[in-house]
Amino acid sequence: MHHLFLKTSSLLVLVATMAFAAQSQAKDPMPSWNDTAAKKTIVSFVEKTTAKDSADFVPAAERIAVFDNDGTLWSEQPMYFQAIFIFDRIKELAPQHPEWTSKEPFASVLKGDVKAALAGGEHALLEMAMATHAGMTVEEFEKSVTHWVSTAKHPTTGKLYTEMIFRPMLEVLAYLRVNGYKTFIVSGGGIDFMRPWAEKVYGIPPEQVVGSSIKTKYEVRDGMPVLIKVPELNFIDDKAGKPVGIHQHIGRRPIIAFGNSDGDFQMMEWTTGGVGLRLGLLVHHDDAER
Amino acid sequence: MHHLFLKTSSLLVLVATMAFAAQSQAKDPMPSWNDTAAKKTIVSFVEKTTAKDSADFVPAAERIAVFDNDGTLWSEQPMYFQAIFIFDRIKELAPQHPEWTSKEPFASVLKGDVKAALAGGEHALLEMAMATHAGMTVEEFEKSVTHWVSTAKHPTTGKLYTEMIFRPMLEVLAYLRVNGYKTFIVSGGGIDFMRPWAEKVYGIPPEQVVGSSIKTKYEVRDGMPVLIKVPELNFIDDKAGKPVGIHQHIGRRPIIAFGNSDGDFQMMEWTTGGVGLRLGLLVHHDDAER
Repeated sequence: MHHLFLKTSSLLVLVATMAFAAQSQAKDPMPSWNDTAAKKTIVSFVEKTTAKDSADFVPAAERIAVFDNDGTLWSEQPMYFQAIFIFDRIKELAPQHPEWTSKEPFASVLKGDVKAALAGGEHALLEMAMATHAGMTVEEFEKSVTHWVSTAKHPTTGKLYTEMIFRPMLEVLAYLRVNGYKTFIVSGGGIDFMRPWAEKVYGIPPEQVVGSSIKTKYEVRDGMPVLIKVPELNFIDDKAGKPVGIHQHIGRRPIIAFGNSDGDFQMMEWTTGGVGLRLGLLVHHDDAER
Repeated sequence: MHHLFLKTSSLLVLVATMAFAAQSQAKDPMPSWNDTAAKKTIVSFVEKTTAKDSADFVPAAERIAVFDNDGTLWSEQPMYFQAIFIFDRIKELAPQHPEWTSKEPFASVLKGDVKAALAGGEHALLEMAMATHAGMTVEEFEKSVTHWVSTAKHPTTGKLYTEMIFRPMLEVLAYLRVNGYKTFIVSGGGIDFMRPWAEKVYGIPPEQVVGSSIKTKYEVRDGMPVLIKVPELNFIDDKAGKPVGIHQHIGRRPIIAFGNSDGDFQMMEWTTGGVGLRLGLLVHHDDAER
């Protein structure tokens, strides 16, 4: 097995620099990347896996590349953007929930105390997500996300959140697709939070987004079939959950994985642990925005 | 809303006849179909949704077509093929499970009493699936399915099970794909039971197969990352579960659905209940094989 898996040790962390190359060559598919070892590794891997006479040739159907989202494709500073979305939903729904003013973590959100609101970690965030998303149909939820990403502004840059994406990664996505790779998001974030904009922003359709979710229930309301979000955990697509989510949705082991954090370790391990040429890259964006 | 949903009432059930048309025309994309209303409906629907100047034009990304498997794409006679696979696994594993000779439903399977083995319905089948699949890695399971479909023979025809498919449906799948549709299986059958052969037989890749599943667990065994099947229900992709599975995997409402039984009703209802032109077809194969 050839592993190009670059481990989490700081020595091997890749730096996907944001600085644009001074002279972008006409034929360079990734002009935002400096001429680094990381870039050469990606190009070399793609050439080896796509040249028909290569010993490492991979049929197009098996060219699966998976990408973490938060901190890999878009920024996660000053906190997960989905947490901000949830906080905004709590503020919006607060008039209908007078009990929230004295109930944590909602009370801290309403007081604007982000640190206290997030003190409960993943569990508290999940509780807030369920409290604010449950009861909505999947279409209503999609509308609320679409509205938020087209209006809410990042606290320090004033940009839309979907403008807080890393251009070098968009170039990698496009470069891989041109070479017959199918690109998937595999994120700890909410699957239904990413789908409404991932196609437009990343070129990744809803059926190629894997993420965390609460359960949905099918029913007919007033003669109309609806899928309702219910306050019950369905799946956490993080850490050891990532290979599980990959298997459940994709059913085939990826040959390329991009991540940026400990939550991506098992996805990297699973991807690079297969037979044949494999590529696992940890990106470290040295600029908060593109 | 225009609904072409043909309900389960016998009056409206479509007959996808197996008889080959006497004179197959060179340009006919579905030569196995007689010149029926059903065929005209499909062709008309595809033309309306793909012609750029059509009022019912649908962008390629939204051309999602879902197909039930058992009884729709392949035969389900004399019983679900996956049940036969599970029975064969029980016989294979019996020497390691002496307790099965006195424990139902295993005892009935070992005695060859299929009727008694299936008396417990879905629950009993699930119990047998868990008992025979749990503990295997997903790769081991894939190998066992691949071996079975390439060696096991149908009890009455003596053919491989993957030869017990309905040729008119293969033609529909190909015709839709040529017209920019993405085709998905949405079946009550096991997702990992269908994936190993669906690409070769139907042209449907693993990531476009939705089905029932037991849970998997990620771990590292002897330094190798593995996904292990565990004896715990993950998801039943049948009846009201089908729209849920569609949302979870595809994230977009299909515009075409093919099914054959009550288990497909909610998938049909969900598909045809969306806005715009929709097509739901119930097929009734009047021949057990192609």
